[in-house]
Amino acid sequence: MTMRYSLVNGEVLNQITINDRGLLYGDGLFETLLLDNQKLCLWPYHYQRLAEGCRRLGLAIPSESLLLDEIKKVINQAETTRSVIKLLLTRGPGGRGYRASHAGSSATRIIQLFDAEEYDYELTEQGIGARICDTALGKNRKLAGIKHLNRLEQVLARSEWQQKDIREGVMLDSDAYVIEGTMTNIFLVMDNFIVTPELKECGVHGIIRRLLIEKQKLLPFPVQIRPVQKQELYAAHEIFFTNSLIGVWPVQQLENHRYDTVEIGRELGRKVKIWQNDG
Amino acid sequence: MTMRYSLVNGEVLNQITINDRGLLYGDGLFETLLLDNQKLCLWPYHYQRLAEGCRRLGLAIPSESLLLDEIKKVINQAETTRSVIKLLLTRGPGGRGYRASHAGSSATRIIQLFDAEEYDYELTEQGIGARICDTALGKNRKLAGIKHLNRLEQVLARSEWQQKDIREGVMLDSDAYVIEGTMTNIFLVMDNFIVTPELKECGVHGIIRRLLIEKQKLLPFPVQIRPVQKQELYAAHEIFFTNSLIGVWPVQQLENHRYDTVEIGRELGRKVKIWQNDG
Repeated sequence: MTMRYSLVNGEVLNQITINDRGLLYGDGLFETLLLDNQKLCLWPYHYQRLAEGCRRLGLAIPSESLLLDEIKKVINQAETTRSVIKLLLTRGPGGRGYRASHAGSSATRIIQLFDAEEYDYELTEQGIGARICDTALGKNRKLAGIKHLNRLEQVLARSEWQQKDIREGVMLDSDAYVIEGTMTNIFLVMDNFIVTPELKECGVHGIIRRLLIEKQKLLPFPVQIRPVQKQELYAAHEIFFTNSLIGVWPVQQLENHRYDTVEIGRELGRKVKIWQNDG
Repeated sequence: MTMRYSLVNGEVLNQITINDRGLLYGDGLFETLLLDNQKLCLWPYHYQRLAEGCRRLGLAIPSESLLLDEIKKVINQAETTRSVIKLLLTRGPGGRGYRASHAGSSATRIIQLFDAEEYDYELTEQGIGARICDTALGKNRKLAGIKHLNRLEQVLARSEWQQKDIREGVMLDSDAYVIEGTMTNIFLVMDNFIVTPELKECGVHGIIRRLLIEKQKLLPFPVQIRPVQKQELYAAHEIFFTNSLIGVWPVQQLENHRYDTVEIGRELGRKVKIWQNDG
């Protein structure tokens, strides 16, 4: 995916100081936003998650109007029908040592515009191949849910496979419970519920996950949030992954297990595409 | 601590691209080296840990001679008796997405020189005040031991206190076992052993920790590496923290518990200062 344009604290720049705590410690947050025909999808959800992340890390929350002003500048540079905006907040420059010497001061804002990589929209229709990752997620209640910059677990998990027909990997926590995909949340279609893992100790509160929970009256079954065991992945009628860029990817095959149908995932994928443009 | 000089991939620079995976994901490693009267302390230990980190993360290991050439350039700029050299390796620029598109290609090298902050050497003689942190360490065998750039747990732990007389905080893992300090390793002087926690699932293999394990025949008791429970901190005769910059800090008081003596920690602190300059 090509970067087309970037702002650092409102200025057209693509560099940052080597003393930035985002680099030194992963001391910051990010959001990945879909820009669909100049429409910024589900911005309020992204901003709310970012603000929650700031509260948890003790970062000053940038005002919504400041961020939207900067994002508008970036949107003006978009040349493709679908683009991706990546927003990073870091605690800014901070010398050496874990202690932040400037608690509450304003965060460094980095906003980047990418041409959307060619997502194969057929994947929502047909379903994907998936695997179960060996790299597990460590548990930490203080970091669970927020989209922070400590992403080595995801990097290691994603490095486990090279096959192009495997599009996503399921990640378990250190006690072998199912948590999420490397870049997605996961849902299991069971008998009377659509189940998604609790994210109390690890994982990211995804935007499409939240959308589906809030719209659950419009789904075939209500959403149940609870611990999920690995073997339930194979007992489910269907499973599917979600994120802001892909919407929904139903799973055709997980390891050696083929699912009989991708029907509900496909249907929800179509709905999510519409809902994203409403919200 | 003031940054005096820096190199990025061998060039005098203090900026890095916003697409560097070190910033985006904490996808990299670091070492903090003590420069004492132009002498780089314990370099072989630092290089070996860095190389182990590279193997774990699947990064190309930079040659020792390349790193030492660059470090020499940096040493030439040192103006204080004691300085600190910080060496960062990242996977370099990488677009969007967790997958590294350039496995095995050379890492980005960042080398910084800082004037040493005025460490109060009295602390090794007198001992320090310490606390037990609320922020726990998540467990992940693939990341345990190496000094990677995902340090939010340490940042959050260090943000728990502001009192100047508290110099360090003990961190427990998610099962409440003792692991390390926020920026140090920890040792407990027990009846017949000097005990230090296993670091199989979290924590960093510290350079001074390794030094003490290797020199254990010269210590009053042999070193025992095993799981350590929180209450053992109070049962110990003494406890002390170690790292490359401070050497050894014996603990005078932990929470409300005062230790009777800091004798062994103080003595080892004096020895470590000598050993650091030998190695």
